[in-house]
Amino acid sequence: MRIAVLGGDGFVGWPTALHLSDLGHHIDIVDNLSRRWIDTELGVQSLTPMDSIQERCRIWREVSGRKINFHLLDLAKEYERVKAWLLEHKPDAVIHFAEQRAAPYSMKSDRHKVYTVSNNVNATHNLLTALVETGIDAHLVHLGTMGVYGYSTVGAAIPEGYLPVQIETMDGAKAEQEILYPTRPGSVYHMTKSLDQILFQFYAQNDGLRITDLHQGIVWGTHTEQTRRHDQLINRFDYDGDYGTVLNRFLIQAAIGYPLTVHGTGGQTRAFIHIQDSVRCIELALNDAPQAGERVRIFNQMTETHRVRDLAERVAGLTGAKVAYLPNPRKEAPENDLVVKNDQFLNLGLNPTTLENGLLSEIVEIAQKFAHRIDRKRVPAVSAWTKEIAGGLNTDPEDTRLKSVS
Amino acid sequence: MRIAVLGGDGFVGWPTALHLSDLGHHIDIVDNLSRRWIDTELGVQSLTPMDSIQERCRIWREVSGRKINFHLLDLAKEYERVKAWLLEHKPDAVIHFAEQRAAPYSMKSDRHKVYTVSNNVNATHNLLTALVETGIDAHLVHLGTMGVYGYSTVGAAIPEGYLPVQIETMDGAKAEQEILYPTRPGSVYHMTKSLDQILFQFYAQNDGLRITDLHQGIVWGTHTEQTRRHDQLINRFDYDGDYGTVLNRFLIQAAIGYPLTVHGTGGQTRAFIHIQDSVRCIELALNDAPQAGERVRIFNQMTETHRVRDLAERVAGLTGAKVAYLPNPRKEAPENDLVVKNDQFLNLGLNPTTLENGLLSEIVEIAQKFAHRIDRKRVPAVSAWTKEIAGGLNTDPEDTRLKSVS
Ligand SMILES: NC(=O)c1ccc[n+]([C@@H]2O[C@H](COP(=O)([O-])OP(=O)(O)OC[C@H]3O[C@@H](n4cnc5c(N)ncnc54)[C@H](O)[C@@H]3O)[C@@H](O)[C@H]2O)c1
Ligand SMILES: NC(=O)c1ccc[n+]([C@@H]2O[C@H](COP(=O)([O-])OP(=O)(O)OC[C@H]3O[C@@H](n4cnc5c(N)ncnc54)[C@H](O)[C@@H]3O)[C@@H](O)[C@H]2O)c1
Repeated sequence: MRIAVLGGDGFVGWPTALHLSDLGHHIDIVDNLSRRWIDTELGVQSLTPMDSIQERCRIWREVSGRKINFHLLDLAKEYERVKAWLLEHKPDAVIHFAEQRAAPYSMKSDRHKVYTVSNNVNATHNLLTALVETGIDAHLVHLGTMGVYGYSTVGAAIPEGYLPVQIETMDGAKAEQEILYPTRPGSVYHMTKSLDQILFQFYAQNDGLRITDLHQGIVWGTHTEQTRRHDQLINRFDYDGDYGTVLNRFLIQAAIGYPLTVHGTGGQTRAFIHIQDSVRCIELALNDAPQAGERVRIFNQMTETHRVRDLAERVAGLTGAKVAYLPNPRKEAPENDLVVKNDQFLNLGLNPTTLENGLLSEIVEIAQKFAHRIDRKRVPAVSAWTKEIAGGLNTDPEDTRLKSVS
Repeated sequence: MRIAVLGGDGFVGWPTALHLSDLGHHIDIVDNLSRRWIDTELGVQSLTPMDSIQERCRIWREVSGRKINFHLLDLAKEYERVKAWLLEHKPDAVIHFAEQRAAPYSMKSDRHKVYTVSNNVNATHNLLTALVETGIDAHLVHLGTMGVYGYSTVGAAIPEGYLPVQIETMDGAKAEQEILYPTRPGSVYHMTKSLDQILFQFYAQNDGLRITDLHQGIVWGTHTEQTRRHDQLINRFDYDGDYGTVLNRFLIQAAIGYPLTVHGTGGQTRAFIHIQDSVRCIELALNDAPQAGERVRIFNQMTETHRVRDLAERVAGLTGAKVAYLPNPRKEAPENDLVVKNDQFLNLGLNPTTLENGLLSEIVEIAQKFAHRIDRKRVPAVSAWTKEIAGGLNTDPEDTRLKSVS
């Protein structure tokens, strides 16, 4: 297959490109490299030393004999070039990772909110319109998030995308109808994924586009089979307060003897998936394309759920780190349960890497190995969800007012 | 009150500005005049001779002694100026009409789709972010459409915004939850209004913005009490295939002896409201602002529903015009029932102008009076929803293959 990997220079995109290239697919990476620019803006860098995308592609060719092409293109701002690109490359499948993906970054300031909405909505919509306009019948696989449900999961098990509801008809009878599972996103970033769902629903219905939307949990882990093959193929590892996801942040905090910073009570339950499983799920989804006219296929792409404070205790147990409880910069329920259905991927043959088995190697091979590259100043999470929250934030875990537990 | 009327140069915005000015409010119109540019692009003009916005404001001052200020500003593209404008003018209420509002225009080509999404989403989101950032606690009244429900109204009565659903909790019990009534928009334009709803939900929840979303039916009629006061205060009247709504198009077709063009069987049922009632509803909504922390208030702003073919017959009956059935350029159900709840406005004291009473004056005072300004070439609806539909379109009602009935 000819596969276009949009956002293929990113954390999930790069190992996906390698995985699919290794399987023999023809891979084109499209990226505007905005994520590298954001690193520059924030003054942070990946914990792992990461080469340019051009150099990564060159090394991959040396190591594997396979070619991955890189194309610099902004999906959100260059509609005409997107169209021309599709017509020239005629992909059989398009995997769409190309969005601003950090909730804290999306809440950092009004400028960041405006950028996130404009970038994500226009990127997705340009892609959809261009597929219709060019008539290219590619299977579109998009990465969404289970975070879209946010406040609407009142202790409910998250189904895979749809909810049957009873609607009262005009004659007083009840008709059953299947609707997109209602979303109530809790950040501007998550909101853009909720907007994406509506775009997908429309273009599947009006134009018969074939779309799979993968509602992914938090991806952890750094290496996949392919990234291990050469030092310079290594994946990015974000640990800063904006892009570092909760587990990554605990790992590097432990590595530098910084307390593990839990927000609020740490009672938030989150869903996780290892990067190796993430790239495998994308492969499985690619092999299972919907037909034209079918509704959008929605999968939950995750393998386990954990409470944040339990994660912290687990990392603390393995490393001897302390745990610090800080005010939560996010506006969210302090405690929530989460049960997620992921039958579809299990049925397709996914065999998960568990945290239980993979965590220690992540500590040793990544966090401790690259600990010298950590900039302590970049560790605190400083983006507050509202002005009131910003006023009460305390981002210093060594502050004596904070209750620290071992 | 200090009221900002965004999109105040438009068909609903202008008479709203006059109506509220007449009530003694301080009115600022903000508009980028894009709608006038679109007239130029399409080579069409309002049936009614319409002055520049600056001239209209001058005449209103002469006629009423009241001042309306006009500000040229693009909400979608000039975020920093939007913020500065709000800080300078500190409105108590903001009425947001400023979007590309024609479904056929939004489906005209890929460029028009891209423009509509980018303009509407960015305009609404910029406004919301700017309100949060400036801390201006204005009541935001937005004009949405009942068209967002599209395919999801399987003969159900359309409630005002929300639907209670039963969600299965993890312990197998059922919990009731109120969700935004599920949308399934049928055009790119309608889709943007569905996106707006998610933006509103988020900003009401996260930042306590006070928002009312008016899901409006098709607005008909030209004059309000204020526009009648001077020839140069007249409202715009769109009749072309893209911007002309169904009733307006029948009226001018009748006036020039062109068959009334019904699409498909004409079995589509649509909701209507007279422009005089529309401006009155907005006044009522303004007086009934939600509190911070309240969910978005959603009203259905319409007063009657009609099947398209019945409307055609009614206009034919009053004018002697013929009716022609043409292929439908839209992708939609050929026949649908529609029952809309509008209890909230009736309870607030709305006393509707019916089609029964207002139609004849619209024919005489507007359509026949300005018939000499009609450009016949602009009458057909030429924007098709999909490539397949475009292939089968026949936009000439005098074509003998078409069944014409009197
Ligand atoms: N990482 C996670 O834990 C996680 C969890 C759930 C969902 N996701 C989703 O998976 C996708 C990939 O996530 P990631 O962690 O790899 O993010 P990332 O930021 O590392 O990668 C995204 C890539 O897209 C590119 N990009 C952004 N906007 C673009 C545009 N307009 N045009 C072209 N390229 C553009 C960036 O330069 C970057 O290389 C995202 O859509 C994200 O929302 C990620
Ligand atoms: N007319 C109807 O039948 C009807 C029905 C339902 C809902 N609505 C809604 O009511 C609102 C007003 O409708 P209308 O018929 O008056 O439309 P209109 O096109 O006549 O007016 C819209 C105005 O907004 C301005 N505008 C558009 N984008 C802008 C931007 N980015 N910045 C600043 N100004 C901008 C235009 O120049 C125009 O003057 C729309 O949001 C529409 O969706 C209208």
